Amino acid sequence: MRLIGTIRTRHTAFEDTPIQSALNPDDRGIVELDPRYRDAVDGLDEFSHLWLITWLGPLEDDPPPPSLRQVPFLLRRRPRQLGILATRGPRRPNPLGLSLVRLTRVDGTEIHFAGVDMVDGTALVDLKPYVSRFDQPAGAVRCGWFDTVTFDEHVTPASLGP
Amino acid sequence: MRLIGTIRTRHTAFEDTPIQSALNPDDRGIVELDPRYRDAVDGLDEFSHLWLITWLGPLEDDPPPPSLRQVPFLLRRRPRQLGILATRGPRRPNPLGLSLVRLTRVDGTEIHFAGVDMVDGTALVDLKPYVSRFDQPAGAVRCGWFDTVTFDEHVTPASLGP
Repeated sequence: MRLIGTIRTRHTAFEDTPIQSALNPDDRGIVELDPRYRDAVDGLDEFSHLWLITWLGPLEDDPPPPSLRQVPFLLRRRPRQLGILATRGPRRPNPLGLSLVRLTRVDGTEIHFAGVDMVDGTALVDLKPYVSRFDQPAGAVRCGWFDTVTFDEHVTPASLGP
Repeated sequence: MRLIGTIRTRHTAFEDTPIQSALNPDDRGIVELDPRYRDAVDGLDEFSHLWLITWLGPLEDDPPPPSLRQVPFLLRRRPRQLGILATRGPRRPNPLGLSLVRLTRVDGTEIHFAGVDMVDGTALVDLKPYVSRFDQPAGAVRCGWFDTVTFDEHVTPASLGP
């Protein structure tokens, strides 16, 4: 995997960093793209929203595998263990993050966005334009345990308790 | 990166494999999850849709970097070069695929789904539940060059011409 950029936000501690971009939509961040990829963003400014795919884990080669069942942050107040692949948490077999953000400006290799759920310095490994036709489910949608949770904006791991 | 599973589909040649799950919604595939992750899918069957994050490139350590500007498959008929990070094409700095699929059944480590845009044998590196609250943009959406294209279902790289 190549690091293609670094994400700058105002959050320095993981436990105090908001969970999910959609729950923290007005906070601003910047992707500092590696200069070698300057030409790769041609046309990106015509999109309103982007997917940021991030690497949330340590950069060591072979970190220990995470627990396969975990209590998601959003269920800390009424714990239920779930398989990690049925959660959006960061401690996964491959710690890839998927964040939908609103693009505000492309300035050379600086990609400005709104909707922050990553700590300052997070590694970016891919960036894709949001495409309604591809990224919206057709038909009825069921969201499992998320359908049982009320979402407050600006929640962080710390605010949800131990 | 860990390979967490392998995707089985009826498509054996890349050029004849449909582009985008949403354009090939009724075709069926199966994720064969590595047995070590059996417990990681607890609760997944309560979701209707999933994100499959795939590794679309060669598995060699250091493949040559792709061209930074490319003509997307969907624009082959009226070519326009775009930055690869403004496309959803597979030849990216990190060849990660993002496919939204409809979950039809979880049977142990076999995850059955509808909506196929991957060749048989594709490597799965992450799987996340689709969560409407996180994965739908708020406000107006602009999809750049995709807004200028008519999508036919079942298109493949081969059907779109050289």
